[in-house]
Amino acid sequence: MSADTAGLGLARVAAPGEGIGLDELALATRNHGMPLEALRYDVTPPGLHYVLTHYDIPAVDPSGWALEIGGAVTTPLRLDLDALMARPAVTSRVLLECAGNGRARFEPRPVSQPWLLEAVGSAEWTGTPLAPLLEEAGLSDGAVDVVFTGADHGIERGVEQDYARGLALADALRPETLLAWGMNGVPLPPQHGAPLRLVVPGWYGMAQVKWLRRIEVLDRPFDGFQNATAYRMMADLDDDGEPVTRIRPRALLAPPGWPDFMTRERFVRRGTVPLTGRAWSGRAPVTRVEVSTDGGSSWSGAGLAPADPAHPYAWRAWTYTWTATPGRWELLARASDADGGTQPAEPEWNLQGMANNVVQRVPVTVLD
Amino acid sequence: MSADTAGLGLARVAAPGEGIGLDELALATRNHGMPLEALRYDVTPPGLHYVLTHYDIPAVDPSGWALEIGGAVTTPLRLDLDALMARPAVTSRVLLECAGNGRARFEPRPVSQPWLLEAVGSAEWTGTPLAPLLEEAGLSDGAVDVVFTGADHGIERGVEQDYARGLALADALRPETLLAWGMNGVPLPPQHGAPLRLVVPGWYGMAQVKWLRRIEVLDRPFDGFQNATAYRMMADLDDDGEPVTRIRPRALLAPPGWPDFMTRERFVRRGTVPLTGRAWSGRAPVTRVEVSTDGGSSWSGAGLAPADPAHPYAWRAWTYTWTATPGRWELLARASDADGGTQPAEPEWNLQGMANNVVQRVPVTVLD
Repeated sequence: MSADTAGLGLARVAAPGEGIGLDELALATRNHGMPLEALRYDVTPPGLHYVLTHYDIPAVDPSGWALEIGGAVTTPLRLDLDALMARPAVTSRVLLECAGNGRARFEPRPVSQPWLLEAVGSAEWTGTPLAPLLEEAGLSDGAVDVVFTGADHGIERGVEQDYARGLALADALRPETLLAWGMNGVPLPPQHGAPLRLVVPGWYGMAQVKWLRRIEVLDRPFDGFQNATAYRMMADLDDDGEPVTRIRPRALLAPPGWPDFMTRERFVRRGTVPLTGRAWSGRAPVTRVEVSTDGGSSWSGAGLAPADPAHPYAWRAWTYTWTATPGRWELLARASDADGGTQPAEPEWNLQGMANNVVQRVPVTVLD
Repeated sequence: MSADTAGLGLARVAAPGEGIGLDELALATRNHGMPLEALRYDVTPPGLHYVLTHYDIPAVDPSGWALEIGGAVTTPLRLDLDALMARPAVTSRVLLECAGNGRARFEPRPVSQPWLLEAVGSAEWTGTPLAPLLEEAGLSDGAVDVVFTGADHGIERGVEQDYARGLALADALRPETLLAWGMNGVPLPPQHGAPLRLVVPGWYGMAQVKWLRRIEVLDRPFDGFQNATAYRMMADLDDDGEPVTRIRPRALLAPPGWPDFMTRERFVRRGTVPLTGRAWSGRAPVTRVEVSTDGGSSWSGAGLAPADPAHPYAWRAWTYTWTATPGRWELLARASDADGGTQPAEPEWNLQGMANNVVQRVPVTVLD
């Protein structure tokens, strides 16, 4: 193991058939996904958007809080919330998804937060673009990475740390990268990063640093735990792996009809059943959503709502009309993007359980 | 099995040592607890209050919605939201807890929503008292139960149903029983029952019917699934069991220091460590909170915030100062109420995993 993989030896993969442990359950009951019926909302109502907190939600007093910008800059800055909110503000509708979404569907299962499919949400983030602030601070010629550090503190695989993520300078300077203080028209709630968070549209959740307190420009690549060890697509402990970055394409279907409490299996009556859902990709515009109602044997195109030029990183609604006949059926949906990306029929396993965008399968019993 | 226990045979208890299944996980990732650090807030911020949805969150259009009051009354009523909101309104701060809280700590584990400790929350509910409405409808002399039916529909252990709970007439007529349209100063969010829900202070969550659409007065006891089959304290399938009603006493401790990501184990530095938490009982006022820092060998009284006469069903803050010396310790807290109730040291098992108010245990490593 290289120095970069300190802590990886503490990652564990479940034995074949091993049930979810109490440690995974403790994460699943603290964190929460978006119930899939909430795909019906353009903007996810407060409390239904997914939440993943690595450590504890910190108690940040906004009155004593200030953001520091330093490191390889000519003029370090210190801005309180009033100073930030006095800057030009934009509101952007953005789909967010946890990089670990789908982890519990891998076999064998990497032991961590055990998401199934629900670690997504759509919100309107209000904040100020980051790039002009970095330019005001005066970037050094040798600047390569920008590190964002939150107020959340804990231990992860033996490494005590404040949560910190590095972003390549070019990504930090994208005009859509925001320092956000508002969510859906109100101040950020505690669990979404109050008083200030980073929003990097198109990227998985690990880049969206919450409870932001320091931005540091580096003249060398950032080698902290969350970039160098966690959030990499690794085949095994000897593989450095590619970093997890932008969100892979995905379509999700709002399961139709009504559920059984314990199995969550679905029931509908025969006849015309409208199917609806959302689709997104953080890599390129979604070009196509296809639906199968026969377990993946045949596929048909779904109707896809037009892209909103004002919100290129929002999810998009899709619809499909199913003529349901009695029996047991399996519904599937998959998205493709302009970059040629789509969703695999089988999970593409990796050691840390990242970015599993396998096609969703929804068994449905059609009643006579 | 009697007719009253139809469906109970489909309830399952996990084998000894059996891990959490994907069905339990699907419930755990949809529903969510309150992260215990949120014990710091008098009123739980939106999105941190626990949520348990039996089926799907229904999409209720408030403009077409009306509440019906009928059954054994002389004058059936139909009221839209404007008519309800024109009535006298009160705002009440109430602790809610799911009857299944603690279920996943039972051995063997009843298979259902697998809560650990987090299925709690404190909210300010705004609504109108139910009793005057029932009196306006004119209760029949033979009225005994009142049934509250929601818009949520599903199947539970083979029984297709709209979620419905009966309440004895005397409980329905308590002055604190509310029809609530507001939560923490804003309209109910979808997952908390929009546009209208029942709030029965002091009772476990199953009584707090969400997405309320009909109230029916009965001249006989209600024998629906959620009263006669679910939510009973049963020793085995042959036991009718006592109904689950009011919330048992409980104290919860906000785990101090910082956590390990995967185990959620806590770490603090040596010295003075303030311990804080909340305590409640739905049966009688909390009279005492005690803390143990040595795994339960010795107990000391904690400081308990005074009761607020305006909010008798709110949780109450407590504090304790711990002088932490290096090593591994186990912190415990327990509440007692004026009714003589307290918390057991070991779980009191029952078939459906109800009302487990066993004392919380928080292992902590104190660093030098």
